[in-house]
Amino acid sequence: MTPAAPSGPRRPAAPDRPALPPAGPDGGPPARCLIRDVSPVVAGGRWPAKRVVGEPVDVLATVLADGHDRLRVEVAHRGPAGGAASHHAMGWTDPGLDRWRGRFVPVTEGLHTFRVLAWVDPVGSWLDGTRRKVAAGQDVASELTEGAALLRAAAERAPAALAERVGDPPGDADADGLDVPEVVAALGDLARRLEAGDVDLLVRADEERPDGLLTLAQRCLVPSSAAASAEHEVLVERERALFCSWYELFPRSWGPAPGVHGTLRDVEGALDEIAQMGFDVLYLPPVHPIGRTARKGPDNAEEAGPDDPGSPWGIGAAEGGHTAVHPALGTVDDVGRLARACADHGLELALDVALQCSPDHPWVTEHPGWFRHRPDGSIQYAENPPKRYQDIYPLDFGCEDWEGLWRACLDVFLFWAEAGVRVFRVDNPHTKPFPFWAWCLAEVRARHPEAVFLSEAFTRPEPMLRLAALGFTQSYGYFPWRVTRDELTAYFTEVSSPPSIDAMRPSSWPTTPDILPWHLQGAGRAQFALRLVLAATLSASYGIYGPAFELCDARSADNGKEEYGASEKYQLRWWDRADPQSLRGLVAAVNRIRRDQLALHTQRTLRFHDVGNDRLLAFSKTAHAGPDVDPARSADNTVLVVVNLDPDGPQAGVLGLDLGALGVDGTRPFEATDLLGGETYRWEGPNPYVELHPDRQPAHVLRLSQPPA
Amino acid sequence: MTPAAPSGPRRPAAPDRPALPPAGPDGGPPARCLIRDVSPVVAGGRWPAKRVVGEPVDVLATVLADGHDRLRVEVAHRGPAGGAASHHAMGWTDPGLDRWRGRFVPVTEGLHTFRVLAWVDPVGSWLDGTRRKVAAGQDVASELTEGAALLRAAAERAPAALAERVGDPPGDADADGLDVPEVVAALGDLARRLEAGDVDLLVRADEERPDGLLTLAQRCLVPSSAAASAEHEVLVERERALFCSWYELFPRSWGPAPGVHGTLRDVEGALDEIAQMGFDVLYLPPVHPIGRTARKGPDNAEEAGPDDPGSPWGIGAAEGGHTAVHPALGTVDDVGRLARACADHGLELALDVALQCSPDHPWVTEHPGWFRHRPDGSIQYAENPPKRYQDIYPLDFGCEDWEGLWRACLDVFLFWAEAGVRVFRVDNPHTKPFPFWAWCLAEVRARHPEAVFLSEAFTRPEPMLRLAALGFTQSYGYFPWRVTRDELTAYFTEVSSPPSIDAMRPSSWPTTPDILPWHLQGAGRAQFALRLVLAATLSASYGIYGPAFELCDARSADNGKEEYGASEKYQLRWWDRADPQSLRGLVAAVNRIRRDQLALHTQRTLRFHDVGNDRLLAFSKTAHAGPDVDPARSADNTVLVVVNLDPDGPQAGVLGLDLGALGVDGTRPFEATDLLGGETYRWEGPNPYVELHPDRQPAHVLRLSQPPA
Repeated sequence: MTPAAPSGPRRPAAPDRPALPPAGPDGGPPARCLIRDVSPVVAGGRWPAKRVVGEPVDVLATVLADGHDRLRVEVAHRGPAGGAASHHAMGWTDPGLDRWRGRFVPVTEGLHTFRVLAWVDPVGSWLDGTRRKVAAGQDVASELTEGAALLRAAAERAPAALAERVGDPPGDADADGLDVPEVVAALGDLARRLEAGDVDLLVRADEERPDGLLTLAQRCLVPSSAAASAEHEVLVERERALFCSWYELFPRSWGPAPGVHGTLRDVEGALDEIAQMGFDVLYLPPVHPIGRTARKGPDNAEEAGPDDPGSPWGIGAAEGGHTAVHPALGTVDDVGRLARACADHGLELALDVALQCSPDHPWVTEHPGWFRHRPDGSIQYAENPPKRYQDIYPLDFGCEDWEGLWRACLDVFLFWAEAGVRVFRVDNPHTKPFPFWAWCLAEVRARHPEAVFLSEAFTRPEPMLRLAALGFTQSYGYFPWRVTRDELTAYFTEVSSPPSIDAMRPSSWPTTPDILPWHLQGAGRAQFALRLVLAATLSASYGIYGPAFELCDARSADNGKEEYGASEKYQLRWWDRADPQSLRGLVAAVNRIRRDQLALHTQRTLRFHDVGNDRLLAFSKTAHAGPDVDPARSADNTVLVVVNLDPDGPQAGVLGLDLGALGVDGTRPFEATDLLGGETYRWEGPNPYVELHPDRQPAHVLRLSQPPA
Repeated sequence: MTPAAPSGPRRPAAPDRPALPPAGPDGGPPARCLIRDVSPVVAGGRWPAKRVVGEPVDVLATVLADGHDRLRVEVAHRGPAGGAASHHAMGWTDPGLDRWRGRFVPVTEGLHTFRVLAWVDPVGSWLDGTRRKVAAGQDVASELTEGAALLRAAAERAPAALAERVGDPPGDADADGLDVPEVVAALGDLARRLEAGDVDLLVRADEERPDGLLTLAQRCLVPSSAAASAEHEVLVERERALFCSWYELFPRSWGPAPGVHGTLRDVEGALDEIAQMGFDVLYLPPVHPIGRTARKGPDNAEEAGPDDPGSPWGIGAAEGGHTAVHPALGTVDDVGRLARACADHGLELALDVALQCSPDHPWVTEHPGWFRHRPDGSIQYAENPPKRYQDIYPLDFGCEDWEGLWRACLDVFLFWAEAGVRVFRVDNPHTKPFPFWAWCLAEVRARHPEAVFLSEAFTRPEPMLRLAALGFTQSYGYFPWRVTRDELTAYFTEVSSPPSIDAMRPSSWPTTPDILPWHLQGAGRAQFALRLVLAATLSASYGIYGPAFELCDARSADNGKEEYGASEKYQLRWWDRADPQSLRGLVAAVNRIRRDQLALHTQRTLRFHDVGNDRLLAFSKTAHAGPDVDPARSADNTVLVVVNLDPDGPQAGVLGLDLGALGVDGTRPFEATDLLGGETYRWEGPNPYVELHPDRQPAHVLRLSQPPA
């Protein structure tokens, strides 16, 4: 640790001239502002953030410069059509933390971009310093002269600087309809008045105070060395990408009588009923021919009997593979016909894409190279040692002919899109390579921008999130296993907040044909009812596996797992849809409330509220009227939901409402109208009393309103 | 929200052939592994992370792939000399979270690089699956054949694959001294035994179990499409960049008698004393000629008397500017001479670089364009309205001749480096542009890699951190204003943990000539003593403004601010260094303990421990013997510090030690030797009782030891 021994006090003889850093565009030094940690940015900018039309983009950035000058920070937003950017001022989130926030609201579908701009603001710095000197009674003659010079410079640059701002949207300092020669004249006039010593102009708070003009002057004096962040992308999709209600059914169970294999045409007959329940997506498990080799019998039995229909996910037989329809269900034409019939009912048809094959799939013989082979030449079936799935051959996405395989898989999506399908539920995407999905989904979307992809990746949080980031529209999540107040609060806070919400839109399902979670096994109607309300109100998108769910099928498999007994995956079921125990009425009511209350169309406004009883869960969502958004899709609306998590008895508690988050003035009464129960309560203050009886209703779903003061 | 109306169930007529994503280097598909969120990475990779020689680099990364195959994840580390990378296995931090951790220890100064590599591991996946099948009693004949094929492939690739690994450091699966033909033969032998059906080989836990060989086979079968992160940099500096003890003095106060202006030669006479107190850096405020125009008098008076010396930070007069020495202090040669004398005492000389000018600085007439001018032609003095600093002209780093100014500022550093100075305390760097510092520090470091820069940026957290990230070695922090247990715990936890610690090394100063914090104003010796111990043990680098601190000068300015009264900044002071109240003995003891205990040389091992009394603060640091590090700088060492935060009375409490963090086996007694007080305590379990009397000692500084079981 001895210091470098200096050999003597030498002067630098002829110091070599080190290269300077690259100058800014005006020949001056590099930009003084630093911009860091911009959000929303997904995976470092590798993928676009997600929004739907009318959903605000709150942009955050850390911006700082040396010294004490005032900064101007803006977000510049460009729509998918390109053209001039609109500029929106950003402001400090907290003084002293150098974190800035701004907002734009995209109102067209497509790929939007934004970036953050920042510069040291000469006009703002001058104005701020001069005002402080005036307040301290100091002489500002010199400052007025400096200000006049600044304004003259601004006037000179105005025609060029303001031209590109014409067309800015309203809301932010608006250049729309700006008369540039008028601005130039006004700036010149202001300069003259400053030179004439009119100090009052800067400090008096009257209508003539020229803040608007000074803001325009700021915009004219943007230095060419302004700092700019990288350009970031936001994919803006149609509303159904965020808000929808799915109904899943196995068409083969919808035949005219018990034991009679249903068809796609039979399903057409059920559309009235499904639409009346208020769903907007009808999702069918795979409709393809089912393999016979190693076909599973009822309850996943190793061997199937001759009449057992097999699992729809055992895809492919002599009749065809992923682009064929099971003959007992109908034809490819029937799929298109069903899609049109759905549209007539305000529904969209969703198909399942499960990229795996039964041993009888045509690809096994046509493209043996798409599968892994064992040393004896046989094809490797799926396994997770010691478990074996001999009825399924996984596709080898890394095989030599990966290009052929990847194209074939893409063609499956394109085939059904051509047939009229725009919504796809994708089975187990986490067992296929991420680069495949990034490519495949982008290619489908390039041809069908309105396509919606629901990812069924019941796996670890990280791959679930990555699949969402790289292009899936929605994702099944962990809702089936979030049961207690604390579990629900923690999980839905996480998925409703950045960074998760910028990449992943949760879709909550109380059950699926694969999952009958432990708390619904043997459970009664009340437990099903409360899980329905939770899924449909916590989550902007949700779905039910109906009629199994609707009819509260609580019979579990006899294997200790979270599976249905007599699972419809392996056998036809006959559902008595007229059963008075059916949840159909509640489902219809909940879906109607979802449609009517715009607050329930949002995910990122979810807020939990205190309640002094851990068997009650209280949360709210809000929607706000916004500029330039379809008025039918934009209104001030606040919904408060209180769910009784106890299916076995009444629960009561005192709420601890965050009235600020609810937009309620705590000094005046407000009304809470129970859209489920029908009552209207008149409340005042943050601590109303609530009481719920599971035999009457699982929850309060309350629309809040407060008359103007 | 009507779905796109399908026009009919058309088959895709002739689907255009979408382009596939770019293939991997072997023609296969893109890499299956994703690598994200690698750390340590500073500012997204814009600046290198910081370490000193022997300080471990713990690399974290999120790594995932599709499916259930086993991954191999490594960190590949390359030293400043280039050459082959050394490879270090990474492992899961927690199962299921896809977060991986690995470590390398840089042992040479300079710019190191690392990146994370990941691939689906065919050998590991095969071995894992086969072992699970064997455990379940399944037939594995096919698996043995597959394994043999894998091993033969590995043997074939071994010569090329292992050649580049020879020279890997020990610790990780070591290729050092590897005999490649021997490996090839052994792999072939293993393949033959598998083919012969020797299952036991894979599962029995004896010496012959071929895990080492299989690890080598893994390394031979790295696919050319392995995923790799970006390459990230780590700047590895000498130990003093992290660990040092500064002593600051005003040479002019060190004259032979009160009122006699001291010289640099006088300071030489004090070096024995300073070295005996155990410091290793001697830091002088600016030594340059001081301006006369608008010179400040005692206590920052607006006007100076004819004999007032002025502030050393009012730099520049007829006698010269930043490359001249105040005639009353000596000459440039005297600076070189002092630097050499310091070196003889195991000290390094640090100078102050304050890039600002008095109105009399030669640059004002030689380069008027380097300053801002008011409309009347006068130069703009420093101001923060309504405050004015008429004795200081700020440099205008954005002026037209910015290139000339920036070079001149760089030349100031290079000039003093030529004179033998390697340590610089930089005044107010946050008021000069960040791009200037990034360039200037890099240029100095390119010529003098051992240079150390201490940033005096008492400003908001964000600019403080950015200056550290872009190149400052150490940073003054908020220690003067962290007083309570909770304040100290929160602040030092933050600055000792990533991401802060990867960019910024804190230097803690109880006072500076600018700052006498409120809790030391009028305080007694005990308060100064406890602040000394806190600074010197919480922080690997610290400093004192002595003798003002040593002599417990608690007199504040009469202006309500945190400033010294009769501040040495504006007048000569005569310090009675023989005062028996002096903290000199304690300072020497603390510095000796700092030198001897390697645990106190670290910052990122800081851990706080519970103590049931909020006037006591308990924390520990640990050092570990490491491979390839100078043994004198590497040993297992644990120090536990307990400080009484109450200067006015005794405090006692029961500790709640995290014995795991201390490396102590809680089932056996251990010894705690108080290096400050001299006693040795024999403790058992996590809850020893401690009691501290401020009139006896401010703290326990305990070396922990436990004899082997």
